[in-house]
Amino acid sequence: MVAHKVSEKTIRRLSHYAMCLRRARRDGLAVITSGFLSHRCGISSAAVRKDLAAYGDFGKQGSGYDVEVLLRNIEEILGTCAPPPVIVVGVGNIGRALLASGLDGTGGYRYTAAFDSDPAMEGVGISGITVMPAREIASACSDLNDTIAIVAVSPGRGQEAVDSLIRAGCRSILSFNLEPLEIPPGVSLRYIEVSTELDVLTHSMKNRVENA
Amino acid sequence: MVAHKVSEKTIRRLSHYAMCLRRARRDGLAVITSGFLSHRCGISSAAVRKDLAAYGDFGKQGSGYDVEVLLRNIEEILGTCAPPPVIVVGVGNIGRALLASGLDGTGGYRYTAAFDSDPAMEGVGISGITVMPAREIASACSDLNDTIAIVAVSPGRGQEAVDSLIRAGCRSILSFNLEPLEIPPGVSLRYIEVSTELDVLTHSMKNRVENA
Repeated sequence: MVAHKVSEKTIRRLSHYAMCLRRARRDGLAVITSGFLSHRCGISSAAVRKDLAAYGDFGKQGSGYDVEVLLRNIEEILGTCAPPPVIVVGVGNIGRALLASGLDGTGGYRYTAAFDSDPAMEGVGISGITVMPAREIASACSDLNDTIAIVAVSPGRGQEAVDSLIRAGCRSILSFNLEPLEIPPGVSLRYIEVSTELDVLTHSMKNRVENA
Repeated sequence: MVAHKVSEKTIRRLSHYAMCLRRARRDGLAVITSGFLSHRCGISSAAVRKDLAAYGDFGKQGSGYDVEVLLRNIEEILGTCAPPPVIVVGVGNIGRALLASGLDGTGGYRYTAAFDSDPAMEGVGISGITVMPAREIASACSDLNDTIAIVAVSPGRGQEAVDSLIRAGCRSILSFNLEPLEIPPGVSLRYIEVSTELDVLTHSMKNRVENA
């Protein structure tokens, strides 16, 4: 299959389609329509059809799409057929909640290890994962280059955690820490930004009031 | 001050500037440069200067920007000078972690109430907030129209939670639930999508490997 150069916006849409298709499969559906995906994902029918036409021969408009085939093709584009392992660095409130919640429903991702720099956390078990000392990240993970690290350390400690992950060979980081982080080229860093989402919602709220 | 019609992308950038400025203020800085914001926010200097020029007379290029004045102006555009209260609906792993972590560093947001439909959670205290029954949302919140609700309920229960929030008058929702949710016009809904972020990171990872 030809590797597609796909924009982040498209990746997000494909990721949403994949999520809906997994749900459809779980609900026993074998064939779905573009309208189904459109409705479930909150994306216009036209955009869904355009995506499906652009990224392969996924089925015929009108007669519907085979859920298994469509999902497999989308996962191939995303590269998530064999999802990389996910480790958690920082097992405070959020890190612990992530581990306890697990990654069911995400298409096969799973937590494989957890680390914390607090010696008191060493050896603590959370959902079958035993917390290891942060200094052991490099030795404990066989292939950090192909691992996603979720960073959820104490406020102000994000950069330190990211630096040591990168030194150990990690190239894919998802940060729950609020602080902006510096990374060298070749490393992918994404943020979960509750604060920014709250700001976006507040801005909409104030605009509604002003325009009411 | 004139109300600005601002794109979501710009709101996100302004939100990041505000976060950096709060940090600068905390660190005792009174004046900063556009280069400082650029570096801290990972946004190009040119884009920072353009934003600051577009959204008001925030200071002089070259001589720097007054941290307090700039922050106040940005918060006025965002509408976050008086941040709305935030409630948490669903006090499982994630909801509990959010409450326990609090909203320090976000510019004044704070959790004011928490709800859960599980009777066993009723009356449980988390970081000074006592969990109330979900059915009491409408009576417990004086002005849901001006409240942000964070939804972190059990998988599959998101729509139900959102429906009852909307019935109770809430118009601003941030969902930690994976499932796509339907909302009527006039309601703002945002998602925290760990799953999608993992997909975006995985796609970058596979592309790096293919292009190596």
